[in-house]
Amino acid sequence: MPDAEGRAAQLPDLAAIRAAHARIAPYVHRTPVLRCSAIDDETRARLYFKCENFQKVGAFKARGATNAVFSLPEAEARHGVVAHSSGNHGAALAYAARQRGIAAWVVMPENSAKVKQDNVRRFGATIRFCAPNIPAREALCAEVLAETGATMVHPFDDPRVIAGQATAALELLEDHPDLDVVIAPVGGGGLLSGTAIAARSLKASIRVYGAEPANADDAARSYKSGNVEPLPQATTIADGLRTTLAPRTLAAIREGAAGIGTASEEAMVRAMRMTWERMKMIIEPSAAVPLACLLEGTLDVAGAKVGIIVSGGNVDLDRLPWQT
Amino acid sequence: MPDAEGRAAQLPDLAAIRAAHARIAPYVHRTPVLRCSAIDDETRARLYFKCENFQKVGAFKARGATNAVFSLPEAEARHGVVAHSSGNHGAALAYAARQRGIAAWVVMPENSAKVKQDNVRRFGATIRFCAPNIPAREALCAEVLAETGATMVHPFDDPRVIAGQATAALELLEDHPDLDVVIAPVGGGGLLSGTAIAARSLKASIRVYGAEPANADDAARSYKSGNVEPLPQATTIADGLRTTLAPRTLAAIREGAAGIGTASEEAMVRAMRMTWERMKMIIEPSAAVPLACLLEGTLDVAGAKVGIIVSGGNVDLDRLPWQT
Repeated sequence: MPDAEGRAAQLPDLAAIRAAHARIAPYVHRTPVLRCSAIDDETRARLYFKCENFQKVGAFKARGATNAVFSLPEAEARHGVVAHSSGNHGAALAYAARQRGIAAWVVMPENSAKVKQDNVRRFGATIRFCAPNIPAREALCAEVLAETGATMVHPFDDPRVIAGQATAALELLEDHPDLDVVIAPVGGGGLLSGTAIAARSLKASIRVYGAEPANADDAARSYKSGNVEPLPQATTIADGLRTTLAPRTLAAIREGAAGIGTASEEAMVRAMRMTWERMKMIIEPSAAVPLACLLEGTLDVAGAKVGIIVSGGNVDLDRLPWQT
Repeated sequence: MPDAEGRAAQLPDLAAIRAAHARIAPYVHRTPVLRCSAIDDETRARLYFKCENFQKVGAFKARGATNAVFSLPEAEARHGVVAHSSGNHGAALAYAARQRGIAAWVVMPENSAKVKQDNVRRFGATIRFCAPNIPAREALCAEVLAETGATMVHPFDDPRVIAGQATAALELLEDHPDLDVVIAPVGGGGLLSGTAIAARSLKASIRVYGAEPANADDAARSYKSGNVEPLPQATTIADGLRTTLAPRTLAAIREGAAGIGTASEEAMVRAMRMTWERMKMIIEPSAAVPLACLLEGTLDVAGAKVGIIVSGGNVDLDRLPWQT
């Protein structure tokens, strides 16, 4: 495994993020920033929600995947792209490939939820199913790459993907340059890396925090130790955050983030429901983690102007976490 | 009952609507306009959703109530305001009164849902409960007015309220002046009246439609006959639309609207769920009626640029219409 220092060089800078923003602008939404005085009162802060749940495919992942796909040279792009994903990255890559008019294959575990399969098929990508374990997934990815000559697009360990994810924070700070703090959920760390690079390049004094489930606190532990710590047995409803950092994203986060907050499952459900009820917007459990950290006080932002990257809104409406 | 012609004079014009917009701007959100290509494809039109579900108190009603409350002369305002409402208008009046720092009383049927009571109490209004019938309601309203000297604010039969509701369409057309059509739900007709006056004053060629449940199609029948037709036995999930037009709103709607579409209960549930799933936003059943009319083809807007006033997002998350 390459060490964190060596790969840290392969991170986007503000120029790359601005280039990504221009590249993807025709294909993604400039999402609104919403406010809610009831939640401000609850958290004793002024919160600015950057609504990536309203993004194409319902998640910020559309930004990174679109930047990666449109960054490919034509000779490479025409063979198509491949992702392994059981979640939003697969749908995002399928969406981006369709925009460019190239093929996409998504390797998914055979037990994936039907709603996630539908999200990939909607954009014309081909699903290849594997057994739900990492060796089976890697074997099938290798097979698809060999068959097709397509390019693998990693969900986060890729500077083009990180630059794309960073464009959400870029827009947020364009709209609200006076923010004191920005918080983003952290799974593999692509969003948080990009957010930290964009926000601190634009405003050196800003504090950037990650937020993750206490039950999957590998990023908090990795941030402290400086090494990629293994993911614990992760039983969390935040299915988007059951991923370990890469050395690349860890380097960016240690460099640019002021800390990582963690939240209990109960606080995540409460934050999710509060957002649905008070803001009338649908957010997925992973997107509720920053607010959950504020409700539990694991991140202290009292009195501050706080941007929150609302990462996505893909939820199975027939299985809500407050319904048992 | 005063006749429609006589009261039609008491409707706001564009100047009154612009004055309302300036008056309420400090207290209400300028809501975003969102788009969704999947729903565009489904309806073969280009839809622009004006998101009043993100408005204060979760509904456009905040606009009308705020305009009414801030239009009161000080000598009148200091005695407070009264509404009878089992829904969003009560919460909106409570909100507006709190912004002005005056008292509010809301007369509600004793069987009102707790979530609706909470929405009124949150803003410090006093609830007075009556038996769930019109004579009991009127008796209690008269009693509260006599006790307090407060001013009654009608949910729709009031030119200040209509001017306030009209500001949503004003903003929508400021943002998207090239719309061909605007559609608003119609219950008592305050929103549709204001929408028609604002939109057609700004752009004479625009078509404005109302949308209502087929099971509560009094507006469609009144529009045809020219008389306020009684509300049928209304068994509809669109609880915000179980109201009959007033002569005043009927006059405005016959003058300014090109027609009224109706939708089945099934189409409303489908439109509501489609909006939740595709747009990641929470809309209440009443707010789904315009899209439901497009899905059922009772309004024909193929190829047009269509603004939809998304009226509100107040839903009991424990009782969703697709869950039985």
